Amino acid sequence: MSETKNFTLAVVPGDGIGPEVTTEALKVLDAVAAQHGVTFERTEYDLGAKRWHATGETLPDAELAEIRKHDAILLGAVGDPSVPSGVLERGLLLKLRFTLDHYVNLRPSKIYPSVGSPLANPGTVDFVVVREGTEGPYVGNGGALRVGTPAEIATEVSVNTAYGVERVVRDAFARAQARPRKKLTLVHKNNVLVHAGHLWKRTVDEVAAEFPEITVDYLHVDAATIFLVTDPARFDVIVTDNLFGDIITDLAAAISGGIGLAASGNINPDRTAPSMFEPVHGSAPDIAGQQKADPTAAILSAALLCEHLGLTEAARAIEAAVEADIEERTGSVRSTAEIGDAITKRAAG
Amino acid sequence: MSETKNFTLAVVPGDGIGPEVTTEALKVLDAVAAQHGVTFERTEYDLGAKRWHATGETLPDAELAEIRKHDAILLGAVGDPSVPSGVLERGLLLKLRFTLDHYVNLRPSKIYPSVGSPLANPGTVDFVVVREGTEGPYVGNGGALRVGTPAEIATEVSVNTAYGVERVVRDAFARAQARPRKKLTLVHKNNVLVHAGHLWKRTVDEVAAEFPEITVDYLHVDAATIFLVTDPARFDVIVTDNLFGDIITDLAAAISGGIGLAASGNINPDRTAPSMFEPVHGSAPDIAGQQKADPTAAILSAALLCEHLGLTEAARAIEAAVEADIEERTGSVRSTAEIGDAITKRAAG
Ligand SMILES: CC(C)[C@H](C(=O)O)[C@@H](O)C(=O)O
Ligand SMILES: CC(C)[C@H](C(=O)O)[C@@H](O)C(=O)O
Repeated sequence: MSETKNFTLAVVPGDGIGPEVTTEALKVLDAVAAQHGVTFERTEYDLGAKRWHATGETLPDAELAEIRKHDAILLGAVGDPSVPSGVLERGLLLKLRFTLDHYVNLRPSKIYPSVGSPLANPGTVDFVVVREGTEGPYVGNGGALRVGTPAEIATEVSVNTAYGVERVVRDAFARAQARPRKKLTLVHKNNVLVHAGHLWKRTVDEVAAEFPEITVDYLHVDAATIFLVTDPARFDVIVTDNLFGDIITDLAAAISGGIGLAASGNINPDRTAPSMFEPVHGSAPDIAGQQKADPTAAILSAALLCEHLGLTEAARAIEAAVEADIEERTGSVRSTAEIGDAITKRAAG
Repeated sequence: MSETKNFTLAVVPGDGIGPEVTTEALKVLDAVAAQHGVTFERTEYDLGAKRWHATGETLPDAELAEIRKHDAILLGAVGDPSVPSGVLERGLLLKLRFTLDHYVNLRPSKIYPSVGSPLANPGTVDFVVVREGTEGPYVGNGGALRVGTPAEIATEVSVNTAYGVERVVRDAFARAQARPRKKLTLVHKNNVLVHAGHLWKRTVDEVAAEFPEITVDYLHVDAATIFLVTDPARFDVIVTDNLFGDIITDLAAAISGGIGLAASGNINPDRTAPSMFEPVHGSAPDIAGQQKADPTAAILSAALLCEHLGLTEAARAIEAAVEADIEERTGSVRSTAEIGDAITKRAAG
């Protein structure tokens, strides 16, 4: 008899629909755990808007140190209109991504034939965006002078290093190498952001020499949005910076069945800290607590979590369960828990 | 008998398909000029890739001073793969936009019923993006250290001032006020780019107080790309920064009949320098010189030029001619000149 392996999970349900979708993702994780001889032992962290209102804290260092001890992090969603914009995003979500060195923000897109796309003829869509997660305009460098006066000036600095760009580009090439189509597209804006753009382009060209089987191309971010609606089937692996990745992955989610299906992993490939898995969607406060949210994106994020922990069969089981559930969606309204239960049953099956 | 008024145009055909589409736009301008008792006297400037290869010049100051003397500028397209990325964009196109203080980059989007959209159900789309044109990440502030070494660092600085943001926001409100739906959406990313984002948001909130009839909302740029493919009919006037505007206007063009129809005006509303009109599309070197380019975007840009010069009837005549032409497009292939001739004939009445 094989031993049961235990994995520790830090769970951050967060705000809005975050707790509801996280509950369903955990149900599914437990179901596959039983099947695959593992357990997931979790600790919940009550971080987010409520905590901030109560204590003014977003993510105290002591708690971050606790979270760091886990094998992985499952996050629901962060952000609430009652909190000034940026406080939770910068103080909690981005603090996790940056401190835990999640330099690969992985966002797969796939069109399931049975799920509608807003595109008339999307074609066969199955690509993954490797979004850089620890640099770019997200670093929080910048500031403002003479705020509130007619002489105000506000700056935002995008920081890009050879160290940071090369490691994410290498990761993207390795992923392209493992995929049948072996294609990599760099998305940037190197005709305007020439310093950062040249660093990205040069790095891709250099690493490309080590991967002769990979077809490499380049698109400006504006042109990439055009192709995402006119010919999304052309993409296989996209590598891009933090901000461009944020923008094009929401668009990618929208064309492939909607934000309710879009999963993501904030990955630390060097495993110096736990990786974090979360749906691409936000906290959607307008539908929170009403069992209206689709937990599929959170559940698919749990599949990425399994994959990262080496539980490949469990990951495949979750994905297959989701796919089977999606194929039978009839358009009749189900609650968050009903969708979660249906997928759990299939995944356990 | 009324006197004939003469307008002077600086014409920059540029690279790739630029010269071909510019020829057609000028044909149409001449046709409406005859009808509306005006003439367009033009001077051509051979700026672009060829000139750069021959002389190393992008836009000499003496030539810029000449261009500045005209009533308006008509530009085809700029950029060629034989020129390092950024040289012509920064040294010619952006130099014109910045030096001539084109702070309103106006980009209308409309879906003509007869033109296909990649969206299955686009609805009635008729909005305009007011893209800031003289600040943001486009300012060219930034640089790189230790280039080509593993210790390279490259930065790009987004500069935003109360002066620059307020004037473009006011322009956008005035445009919204003149439209039937009276709606304005600010697109930014104020949960991450907090300094610039708060300046933009605060400015919109302040100016909104002077425009009580206008409905104002805010979208993060990532969410805006979702709505552009799931519900583009919701938009009326969008105001946004230089980079976000670049990205969402290409997407807007793609969902509304394609980049072949997307016109733009780089406007100096204070009229301290000539405004510049150009199609949103690029130089498309792959189809250059083959009479394959659609000149419609250049022709609609000429309509924006007429509008700016106060030739409202001429502008309407061009738009009506384009609309009539579009409505009868059958899918049979026409050359650039054939499309231009057909629209010219209609515009001439
Ligand atoms: C909430 C926000 C800070 C975040 C981001 O911009 O990265 C979100 O949009 C995402 O894509 O995960
Ligand atoms: C060519 C390039 C510099 C330009 C821009 O980024 O503004 C183009 O994409 C546009 O939208 O007019």
